[in-house]
Amino acid sequence: MPLIQVHLARDTFDKHHAAIGDAIHDAQIAALGIPADDRFQIFTPHDAGELKFDPAYNNVQRQNLLVVRVIAVHMYDVATKRKFFQAVVDRLEPLGIRPEDVLISLTENGFEDWYAGKL
Amino acid sequence: MPLIQVHLARDTFDKHHAAIGDAIHDAQIAALGIPADDRFQIFTPHDAGELKFDPAYNNVQRQNLLVVRVIAVHMYDVATKRKFFQAVVDRLEPLGIRPEDVLISLTENGFEDWYAGKL
Amino acid sequence: MPLIQVHLARDTFDKHHAAIGDAIHDAQIAALGIPADDRFQIFTPHDAGELKFDPAYNNVQRQNLLVVRVIAVHMYDVATKRKFFQAVVDRLEPLGIRPEDVLISLTENGFEDWYAGKL
Repeated sequence: MPLIQVHLARDTFDKHHAAIGDAIHDAQIAALGIPADDRFQIFTPHDAGELKFDPAYNNVQRQNLLVVRVIAVHMYDVATKRKFFQAVVDRLEPLGIRPEDVLISLTENGFEDWYAGKL
Repeated sequence: MPLIQVHLARDTFDKHHAAIGDAIHDAQIAALGIPADDRFQIFTPHDAGELKFDPAYNNVQRQNLLVVRVIAVHMYDVATKRKFFQAVVDRLEPLGIRPEDVLISLTENGFEDWYAGKL
Repeated sequence: MPLIQVHLARDTFDKHHAAIGDAIHDAQIAALGIPADDRFQIFTPHDAGELKFDPAYNNVQRQNLLVVRVIAVHMYDVATKRKFFQAVVDRLEPLGIRPEDVLISLTENGFEDWYAGKL
């Protein structure tokens, strides 16, 4: 039941939202081992001025910003998280989304913190 | 000070946002015991393609997706959380929102993590 | 790598989004000691009915609602958080944003929960 929230420029959404959704979902299956039908993704396209960032933080050359927020049950170790992050950017890059432009932020909760269609 | 964020299809928002807001707020009062004036709700209506989900996850027949995200102080036990989730879906169902179509995700923080109009 | 998400009325966004972004970022530098280039802000302007709140909760006279959500690594003590909240509202007030109308909610994660342009 990870919940994925993607914040991105509207033109990127319009061009690639289906492929971005598939890419992130495939990264979850490959790196986190979630079931193929465990997909909950919220996309929010943003207009000019809504995504504010510094081009240089963390010593990269950032040109744009695509934010992937993940809420997941606390169960993945550090190596698994890093593998997942890498899997996401590896799958987004063929769509023209540069790894430098990606920000991923993960927050954790417990199994008891979810309702997914039934108790 | 729970913060409620609701992500839903735009047509559902247009038809029912007031009643959905009341339903979730009433569920918080009934199940979590919050004060009646402790209401902070952010609704985000979504257009086609923005909410992506699998119809079958968790062995339900999902037709739509309405996500309720809750940020609340860490203070509720598992039984209280389940009671709250049930109270939400029970109150949404009369509005035509099927329990199967609801995803709730709760994340917790501390009392010191809030500013609500004053320190 | 704090991630800032601002939810606000569309007219407030249109008038002041650049100054609000600068104000919150400056508060982070002053109170949290983050690097000047560590800026990731997502603004979501909201239309009528999307922000629901009670005018009186916490014994203030609320007229509007501007929500600042922060995701930050777990590393700040309570006094630092309070200093940050105060720094935010102090810097928003000259823009006509009343402290009473601000809600801030902070959630924490770990260093391993971020990808910012590279691993």
